[in-house]
Amino acid sequence: MTFIHEDFLLESDTAQDLYHSYAASQPIIDYHCHLNPADLAANRRFNCLYDIWLAGDHYKWRAMRLNGEADTYRTGEAKPYDQFLAYARTVPYSLRNPLYHWTHLELKRYFNIDTLLNEKTAPAIWEEANEALADDALSTWGILEKFKVEMIGTTDDPTEDLQHHKQLEHSGCPARVLPTFRPDRAVAIENSTSWNEWTDELATVSGLDCSNLEQFQCALTQRIEYFNARGCVASDHGLPACPQSIASTTEAAATFGKARCGQALSNQQADAFMGYMLCWLGERYTEKEWVMQLHLGAIRNVNQAVFKHDGSDAGCDSIDDRDQIKGLALMLGELSARDKLPKTILYNLDPAKNYAFATMCGNFFEAGVPSKVQFGSGWWFLDQLEGMTQQLNALSNLGLLARFIGMLTDSRSFMSYPRHEYFRRLLCNLLGQDIESGRIPADAPMQNLINGICHHNAKAYFKL
Amino acid sequence: MTFIHEDFLLESDTAQDLYHSYAASQPIIDYHCHLNPADLAANRRFNCLYDIWLAGDHYKWRAMRLNGEADTYRTGEAKPYDQFLAYARTVPYSLRNPLYHWTHLELKRYFNIDTLLNEKTAPAIWEEANEALADDALSTWGILEKFKVEMIGTTDDPTEDLQHHKQLEHSGCPARVLPTFRPDRAVAIENSTSWNEWTDELATVSGLDCSNLEQFQCALTQRIEYFNARGCVASDHGLPACPQSIASTTEAAATFGKARCGQALSNQQADAFMGYMLCWLGERYTEKEWVMQLHLGAIRNVNQAVFKHDGSDAGCDSIDDRDQIKGLALMLGELSARDKLPKTILYNLDPAKNYAFATMCGNFFEAGVPSKVQFGSGWWFLDQLEGMTQQLNALSNLGLLARFIGMLTDSRSFMSYPRHEYFRRLLCNLLGQDIESGRIPADAPMQNLINGICHHNAKAYFKL
Amino acid sequence: MTFIHEDFLLESDTAQDLYHSYAASQPIIDYHCHLNPADLAANRRFNCLYDIWLAGDHYKWRAMRLNGEADTYRTGEAKPYDQFLAYARTVPYSLRNPLYHWTHLELKRYFNIDTLLNEKTAPAIWEEANEALADDALSTWGILEKFKVEMIGTTDDPTEDLQHHKQLEHSGCPARVLPTFRPDRAVAIENSTSWNEWTDELATVSGLDCSNLEQFQCALTQRIEYFNARGCVASDHGLPACPQSIASTTEAAATFGKARCGQALSNQQADAFMGYMLCWLGERYTEKEWVMQLHLGAIRNVNQAVFKHDGSDAGCDSIDDRDQIKGLALMLGELSARDKLPKTILYNLDPAKNYAFATMCGNFFEAGVPSKVQFGSGWWFLDQLEGMTQQLNALSNLGLLARFIGMLTDSRSFMSYPRHEYFRRLLCNLLGQDIESGRIPADAPMQNLINGICHHNAKAYFKL
Repeated sequence: MTFIHEDFLLESDTAQDLYHSYAASQPIIDYHCHLNPADLAANRRFNCLYDIWLAGDHYKWRAMRLNGEADTYRTGEAKPYDQFLAYARTVPYSLRNPLYHWTHLELKRYFNIDTLLNEKTAPAIWEEANEALADDALSTWGILEKFKVEMIGTTDDPTEDLQHHKQLEHSGCPARVLPTFRPDRAVAIENSTSWNEWTDELATVSGLDCSNLEQFQCALTQRIEYFNARGCVASDHGLPACPQSIASTTEAAATFGKARCGQALSNQQADAFMGYMLCWLGERYTEKEWVMQLHLGAIRNVNQAVFKHDGSDAGCDSIDDRDQIKGLALMLGELSARDKLPKTILYNLDPAKNYAFATMCGNFFEAGVPSKVQFGSGWWFLDQLEGMTQQLNALSNLGLLARFIGMLTDSRSFMSYPRHEYFRRLLCNLLGQDIESGRIPADAPMQNLINGICHHNAKAYFKL
Repeated sequence: MTFIHEDFLLESDTAQDLYHSYAASQPIIDYHCHLNPADLAANRRFNCLYDIWLAGDHYKWRAMRLNGEADTYRTGEAKPYDQFLAYARTVPYSLRNPLYHWTHLELKRYFNIDTLLNEKTAPAIWEEANEALADDALSTWGILEKFKVEMIGTTDDPTEDLQHHKQLEHSGCPARVLPTFRPDRAVAIENSTSWNEWTDELATVSGLDCSNLEQFQCALTQRIEYFNARGCVASDHGLPACPQSIASTTEAAATFGKARCGQALSNQQADAFMGYMLCWLGERYTEKEWVMQLHLGAIRNVNQAVFKHDGSDAGCDSIDDRDQIKGLALMLGELSARDKLPKTILYNLDPAKNYAFATMCGNFFEAGVPSKVQFGSGWWFLDQLEGMTQQLNALSNLGLLARFIGMLTDSRSFMSYPRHEYFRRLLCNLLGQDIESGRIPADAPMQNLINGICHHNAKAYFKL
Repeated sequence: MTFIHEDFLLESDTAQDLYHSYAASQPIIDYHCHLNPADLAANRRFNCLYDIWLAGDHYKWRAMRLNGEADTYRTGEAKPYDQFLAYARTVPYSLRNPLYHWTHLELKRYFNIDTLLNEKTAPAIWEEANEALADDALSTWGILEKFKVEMIGTTDDPTEDLQHHKQLEHSGCPARVLPTFRPDRAVAIENSTSWNEWTDELATVSGLDCSNLEQFQCALTQRIEYFNARGCVASDHGLPACPQSIASTTEAAATFGKARCGQALSNQQADAFMGYMLCWLGERYTEKEWVMQLHLGAIRNVNQAVFKHDGSDAGCDSIDDRDQIKGLALMLGELSARDKLPKTILYNLDPAKNYAFATMCGNFFEAGVPSKVQFGSGWWFLDQLEGMTQQLNALSNLGLLARFIGMLTDSRSFMSYPRHEYFRRLLCNLLGQDIESGRIPADAPMQNLINGICHHNAKAYFKL
């Protein structure tokens, strides 16, 4: 039997039945990812397996480094094939790591390759994959069609002109590609240089000079309208943690003024400004009926040598253990007090906080909106069997699994769509175990539950 | 086969044998709950399923809200039956949530109903249950007899006159109903208005004017004597976390004076005062041979809109992730230094801290008192299969499971006694797995272990 | 069937095959323990089971105390046999605690005793074990030979003269016994008295008067050279957490001066001094190609009564929940910025932080050094089935299990070598489950993986 066979991860008859009957055929709503809109607009074809699979994938970089490979795949010293070979050497050492499963699931689904990747099998796999990539079936649009992707939520800076999204609107692209408003640099005032540069860009794009808070907010409002007109249904924030305080408008305006003049801020001022801005933005999202996404808990750029050499997003980030709940309660509480809490998805990076996050979601609600505050699917380091199981169990025990909006790739790669399959297999396996052990009755409404999590709930939540 | 069948949750022959041979027949000692003593004194009968099952149950409120139901069950806009219907609509969406199990276990044990609850089955279940509730067998005393409840520990403010407990002493109530001393408002000096109001009440009840710390302590001592005379064997404290500091008597007296005059306190002063009071109370408990219970780790009233409208205990609380251990070590360490540490039960709300709590318990001991500091059973959000399993595993790996005082309902509802059955099935299932896999020898003393945890250990610990 | 049988803990055919084919026969590299070098140098024989098994074992002390036994085994009031009896009484109450498994595994492997220990069986076991202990086969060298121990890393203060290590170099001892440099007292400047006493000792040993930072560093450098000449390959640090700040050399020199004069330091000064020293030491370790070990997360001496009476290491320590990641990122980040990060092993005591620790390891790397920063095996309270499983799963999901350097005893007792067997059985059981469920392919390179974790990886990592 091949490694990736029909019933991969489905450890009981019931699990197999649930997966093949209900989950397998559902379309994909990939409401949060980091795909490049230009690749989508151009219906890009990929030259080789390196381009579609290794370039930009920091999961693979980390694995190669941990295996003691020289760090040449990033610096560009090695050729694509050599870098692929370095990865092939690493794969046999990655048993029990999700990369081992993802690698072989992706080779199977994109290229119908059943061979296990290692240094010996690498040459033939390289050739076979590259040949397949030359075909239209594996252009970006071909891929979307193959995996029944209905919607893609990209991640975009408020200053973006969204030209690719505009092009895509009346193209033949099989999926709706919607922008997501991610104003991280607008709120990160503690990094004065970066914040001022970004505020200058905002001024340029908006035509408003952003010399005071009011103008800054006008400019952001203008961008929100602009994104909304391009079909945006969600915002996104990446934060170490929610702020511990919320400035008044007067305080925020004063802090804004200081920062804009390049004066130093205290940590407390920067924190309270961020608190002010997040609540202000939250109100705007509510008005637009957007979903607010919060990605919480990363500690970034830990390896200072790599950061100096390569900057951010180089694969040297990790999970932080700092307190999350007090700040989150403050922000969501304040928005609820103003009756302006938008639909919200909380993504948590520290699995020790899964239960705390799941109970936080249960504090907020709105008639007619099932599970208004969602506990987001296992994120980044948690997007693997154990991490996703823990998230599903926390959500199940402390909320309503049946109202969960399910999986997303969060990926920079077009080869990540099988992650939805991976998630669905895990989900059906868990449910199958529960049915076979009698924890779920045999006649429970499983089709509704599974179709909801795999597709319908997200469709309704984002009003697609 | 019905959903709640004889071997529900018992996944091996050994588990079934252990449960039916040893656990099932044990009486119940429900040493901590929030039942209304008046309902007990009056041997109350319930008019309908809403009254006994939905009114006051914030678990169900949360589930209905999360399902997008309008929040009418609390405001009283909807009629009892409509609110029951809203819950019936929610139940099919609660698969994998403990409510799904509790709901059907309770319907089975109280009314012998095997039908799964949903919108269609709701009308018949409503009628059948209401008919049964009219019978004496389901009066509060009938229920206690049916479930072999030997002892109930209620939760009572120090200013209570405990008249219902007094009435119950020589009534025909089948269980001993003992008060528990819960002086939360006595120590929460940071909330100046509430604290002063409460101190006024204490002054009235005690006849001491409580204008200084010494008098305040005299009044509390008087109430402790009063509770003790009513059979009290335990105190209880609900705290976000233990204080980080302990004031000297002089400092505490000064802080008391300021607060009593309505002067503002610093966070540090309030914290140290609480530290002082908790240690002082701990000494008193030791003198009375009471058990001290600490419920740690909730963050309350997070939804500010609900809090403004409905006040506390409205189902908008959740798990906090703040540090617990340093303060706990300080307080228990100080009491041990004074040789005045009472028997203590630590209830932890954040499962990520289970191991830390379990090891904290192991630092304290007394000859002749097995497991003097107990790691309390899965509390609130953790009172479900995964949460209780994690608590049992932490306790087993880091302490002596065989010395555990076991389960309690912590409930406000008379329909919660099957939680003891639920816990016992889980316990026997875990032990059964261990025996079948050879991790526990086949001839280990299981009867002692199971009877101890289900009944005997609590009886000995509370000296009943 | 006896409790400790051939396939103990091996729950599938595949697990049994993996264990017996690959794991069982591997030698032991016990790279971190607390054995007494004098016992090794003297090839000590033990008078009785108490001496080898109960004296100095705080795991057993805690268990006896938790069982309500009088605390006489430490104070020496009870005779060895009585203390053994107290332990025998405790064992039946320790079901599901690792002590239950360790106890019977150790009795089996050292004395071939299959009887379960309890009060009744105690007398015969005492006699049988003591008889066996009289034989050369159970002298310390006999034990090392029996368990194929190739290398032992002891734990030694920098002021030690390492005379026993020197004696052992050309003795017939079957294992290499290498010192480990543990300068905890050199960096703990917040405890002024202890730190000054220790610095005086360092001055005496080194012949340098240590009146300023430069001399202090010279003296430490001298000791590092001395340890290196005795074969030292690793350092070790036990810290509550890494410092939150790193002083400059000027600041550190000033803090040193103040402390040396007995002036009080602020918490911030002590923290930054420790940060400075740890980075300085880290650089030295890199120069010597030593491994740096960090043991993080204990809160010690919590029971103040015991601490006053008995001092440290009395079994009254527990798991802390304080933040670990920010300080760890600061220290490892700083060393990486200086290009002076040594090979490092991170031992984590709070299982809630396993994922955060495992991802921290992945931020650092070196070509040719697989998994340069290692996530250490389950430590102290976590050295049991659940704790080790969680560590292995975190490492697997977030790093490369195949590059793991595996198990160590961390023990003070010569009867702890079966912990390696215990770990290997668990490892093979996990891998067997994965193969049988299809999560690992049947033809994956398991021999390499298992031999690597059990032996080869540590050998290569420590360059033995």
